[in-house]
Amino acid sequence: MPLNSEQIAEIEELRSNPQPTLRAVAPGMEKHLYKAHEVLDHGFVRVIDYMGDDAAICQAARVSYGKGTKSVQNDEGLIRYLMRHWHSTPFEMCEVKLHIKLPVFVARQWIRHRTANVNEYSARYSILDREFYIPEPEHLAAQSVINNQGRGEALTGEEAARVLRYLKDDSHTAYDHYEEMISQDGQQGLARELARMNLPANVYTQWYWKVDLHNLFHFLRLRADSHAQYEIRVYAEAMCEIVKDWVPAAYGAFEDYRLGGAVLSGKGVECLRRMLAGEEVTQENSGMSKGEWREFMGVVGG
Amino acid sequence: MPLNSEQIAEIEELRSNPQPTLRAVAPGMEKHLYKAHEVLDHGFVRVIDYMGDDAAICQAARVSYGKGTKSVQNDEGLIRYLMRHWHSTPFEMCEVKLHIKLPVFVARQWIRHRTANVNEYSARYSILDREFYIPEPEHLAAQSVINNQGRGEALTGEEAARVLRYLKDDSHTAYDHYEEMISQDGQQGLARELARMNLPANVYTQWYWKVDLHNLFHFLRLRADSHAQYEIRVYAEAMCEIVKDWVPAAYGAFEDYRLGGAVLSGKGVECLRRMLAGEEVTQENSGMSKGEWREFMGVVGG
Amino acid sequence: MPLNSEQIAEIEELRSNPQPTLRAVAPGMEKHLYKAHEVLDHGFVRVIDYMGDDAAICQAARVSYGKGTKSVQNDEGLIRYLMRHWHSTPFEMCEVKLHIKLPVFVARQWIRHRTANVNEYSARYSILDREFYIPEPEHLAAQSVINNQGRGEALTGEEAARVLRYLKDDSHTAYDHYEEMISQDGQQGLARELARMNLPANVYTQWYWKVDLHNLFHFLRLRADSHAQYEIRVYAEAMCEIVKDWVPAAYGAFEDYRLGGAVLSGKGVECLRRMLAGEEVTQENSGMSKGEWREFMGVVGG
Amino acid sequence: MPLNSEQIAEIEELRSNPQPTLRAVAPGMEKHLYKAHEVLDHGFVRVIDYMGDDAAICQAARVSYGKGTKSVQNDEGLIRYLMRHWHSTPFEMCEVKLHIKLPVFVARQWIRHRTANVNEYSARYSILDREFYIPEPEHLAAQSVINNQGRGEALTGEEAARVLRYLKDDSHTAYDHYEEMISQDGQQGLARELARMNLPANVYTQWYWKVDLHNLFHFLRLRADSHAQYEIRVYAEAMCEIVKDWVPAAYGAFEDYRLGGAVLSGKGVECLRRMLAGEEVTQENSGMSKGEWREFMGVVGG
Repeated sequence: MPLNSEQIAEIEELRSNPQPTLRAVAPGMEKHLYKAHEVLDHGFVRVIDYMGDDAAICQAARVSYGKGTKSVQNDEGLIRYLMRHWHSTPFEMCEVKLHIKLPVFVARQWIRHRTANVNEYSARYSILDREFYIPEPEHLAAQSVINNQGRGEALTGEEAARVLRYLKDDSHTAYDHYEEMISQDGQQGLARELARMNLPANVYTQWYWKVDLHNLFHFLRLRADSHAQYEIRVYAEAMCEIVKDWVPAAYGAFEDYRLGGAVLSGKGVECLRRMLAGEEVTQENSGMSKGEWREFMGVVGG
Repeated sequence: MPLNSEQIAEIEELRSNPQPTLRAVAPGMEKHLYKAHEVLDHGFVRVIDYMGDDAAICQAARVSYGKGTKSVQNDEGLIRYLMRHWHSTPFEMCEVKLHIKLPVFVARQWIRHRTANVNEYSARYSILDREFYIPEPEHLAAQSVINNQGRGEALTGEEAARVLRYLKDDSHTAYDHYEEMISQDGQQGLARELARMNLPANVYTQWYWKVDLHNLFHFLRLRADSHAQYEIRVYAEAMCEIVKDWVPAAYGAFEDYRLGGAVLSGKGVECLRRMLAGEEVTQENSGMSKGEWREFMGVVGG
Repeated sequence: MPLNSEQIAEIEELRSNPQPTLRAVAPGMEKHLYKAHEVLDHGFVRVIDYMGDDAAICQAARVSYGKGTKSVQNDEGLIRYLMRHWHSTPFEMCEVKLHIKLPVFVARQWIRHRTANVNEYSARYSILDREFYIPEPEHLAAQSVINNQGRGEALTGEEAARVLRYLKDDSHTAYDHYEEMISQDGQQGLARELARMNLPANVYTQWYWKVDLHNLFHFLRLRADSHAQYEIRVYAEAMCEIVKDWVPAAYGAFEDYRLGGAVLSGKGVECLRRMLAGEEVTQENSGMSKGEWREFMGVVGG
Repeated sequence: MPLNSEQIAEIEELRSNPQPTLRAVAPGMEKHLYKAHEVLDHGFVRVIDYMGDDAAICQAARVSYGKGTKSVQNDEGLIRYLMRHWHSTPFEMCEVKLHIKLPVFVARQWIRHRTANVNEYSARYSILDREFYIPEPEHLAAQSVINNQGRGEALTGEEAARVLRYLKDDSHTAYDHYEEMISQDGQQGLARELARMNLPANVYTQWYWKVDLHNLFHFLRLRADSHAQYEIRVYAEAMCEIVKDWVPAAYGAFEDYRLGGAVLSGKGVECLRRMLAGEEVTQENSGMSKGEWREFMGVVGG
């Protein structure tokens, strides 16, 4: 970022005018409305609207005329039960609409989650800003030597410096040429829908993204995970903080049963039982491949 | 219906406690919240929650920091443009959650629209009420003689009386036996998940149904149409009235471009141009089948 | 069932005419094509078409010009890796189309899985057959006394006899009246779309159901589970047998990682580690509710 | 392109081995299997697999044991009826899997159609090729002066030359640096998931895209339209040619009722009737905005 003064004024105007409603109101979410939570060097996550709260999950699960249960405590118990038994539809009854600014290569990963509504800033109609993601030096990671999809240690010295120089210089050259190509000053000007093709994948875009809570949890489970690419994980983490304030009971259940939980294979369950019965179980006698065994050990803490 | 006193008290409690919010508020929709709009003999449509208003459609289309356009008039122009050019995603940015009570055979048609979130009252857990749809005499229609899928005139006399008698008597017998089978008075009692199979398709069920405005419009276009079965059309019409109060500009555009509009085939466009050029066009020289021609005449008013 | 001679002739005609194709062919699936696998008293599952095989999953995961990997063994390893790490999109690249005959109350559960394509036999156009699900005596279960959603022991004696009598008699009375109402013999005949409302939920319907392998696995995980209602579980089990022949490697991975696996909560993982470290862990010192502890014990085999 | 010899060999291997199947076979589609239809300078559309044919649409609409109708002629009539009355589910019963190579900025538009299955070549795992879309001079269009979203005439002379120079030079510089950054020759090498961010949006990517016929028609209606960006339209047009060979009756109905048809608003229908009654209707007395009137005139041919 930072936001310019016009944007700040727009946000302040939106935050200055509370109105009465009869709908479910989540006080913990109201405080987030319209504010921009900074992510990466120019990105943000901003809550535009939401529907429902913890009680709304119970109300829908019960198909109730009034409130779903008699107390917050009952709500929490019911929510944990629903999460544990994969009753996903009550969580679909909450919805959130976010305004997100993110680099294009992150947007390309993000959009693979199809069960959401999206309006992206159009580079056919409009001119993109000169804003590019340039990683902090500590996030300039080497290719992992043990995992095709992973990152190793951060680069250092001349190698790191050269990468940063390339990323910065190429971005700016590309943008200079983008501007020159679309300029209508003394020339016709290339169509915007064509000129955008010159911009690299670290340019920032923006979108409105609307999703229900069940599908958001699915997104967060995959993207707040340690295997997710750092640049999307920080968005997922920012959203986790927001969701925790919005629906604390549902988020608590999600944290316990999904984020902090573990999935065991049939072989894993069998090995576990053998271990608890006192048997010495090794990869060799486990029936698992090396990869599976490593992941299993990660769960049981071996 | 009518609602019982406990249900009325629950609704009144929900309507008695306005709270401040910073979100978009649609005043025309607030007045509908929680109230039950009666449909058929025991059914209703009831707004539980909503997200967004006309301005929110523009705000998303523009991916805006603040409001989408400067005025209500500009909003309306943009909304009509979006509707006309099939830009559906901005309409997906509004969402509504409804509580609906409806006969099972209507629910079975309804659920074919898959792009919505649903929580239905569970007849595995709970006991269904003794409420059955019995048509008004004027809706007791004969099978159409020209259309396999349609209705003809209303039945009369002894034939009508016998139909009503069957529908009422069979419903009540089925429910008496349902109650007897699940009773745990002096016996084990059949599992609810089995006993429900004895109930006919005119028994009422209930669900929470949440859908975005684009998909709701799609539903309404198909189900508020004169070819839709009467018993689902009355639900669609009740929802049209609600949506008109919620997002008047979007509903106006929907009414003009979808509900009140017409789709012509390539052959239809060609015939139209020939007619406007003064040529006498008949089914025989139109290239259309009889069915197509009849529908084309319905549009051009011949 | 059984199928009538005309249906058998149609199936035989379809099975008698192999044609050459360049597409992926799954020999294990060809033998199932068009055959009706009987389920319940009148139902069936019948494969109409399929797309892809185990190799096609790898080919898509690799976005390959030719085959995905060099060998069946490599395919299996890659498939297990994809399943373990929740890479769902390659499994979406296989598709199956089934013709299913099932009682309406089962269809109503089934249709809650929305990510599939469905064409149901229309009771607006057509006349339903006189076929109703009547449970075998051993499946005439009592309501569970420990679980609102479950079944207890089978009913016996006079109670069981009475239930069977009600189910049979009410079905037949309802169908007699359905026939009388729609009859055009000496009367107009009630519209089919109305008459169907008199039929109970154990009447059979039919549909074509098309789904990709990822979403089919999701369905099977929930519906082949011991908590699923018996009457839908038998359909899921019949489909498991078919899928095993179609994509043996994918099914094997599914069986190990989903069907036979287990999900532990964060608290469960913690308790497990304490147990493996030799500590005595009980429900009281586990931090879990009684329900959670019971389910946890079910996994670790305590 | 062109394909390299290894890729050609893989395609030839796949095409050389017909196998018998009992499934529906569409002869017109078999000839396309695996072949690459060239699009733009390096892109292609390639059929990997398909399910169903025209007859399969009818079979599903009828929920049939055998074939859906008795003759190809009946099939066509039924298909036209289904298309005209928006019965979309039978068209969902056909499915196609395509391998597509396309520039990233085209992929970003494409992916907004969410009802499809996608596996994209991963730039986290793999190294992208040095292939960039460089428009033919006649497609180097200026920004439209009357439409924010459109293109005007092709650029010429020095302006065109400079645009081409920028696009080529910047692509190659970006790729040179991409290669240098990921190189592990004498250095650690930047993680691929980071290095890709330096590549511009005209770099080519590839994916497997699987979609049902109903949703494919929806895509084609929007993207084969004259308002679609040229670079995605050519892919849509290539797919139209393929679909025409696959399901000729369904494609014919699509062409007549969707591609070649027109949608009129309620106001449009009213004006049309006035015109046919001999009245002189102008924009001023039409009740339409200028934009609407221009589009209306485009339909009626004024």
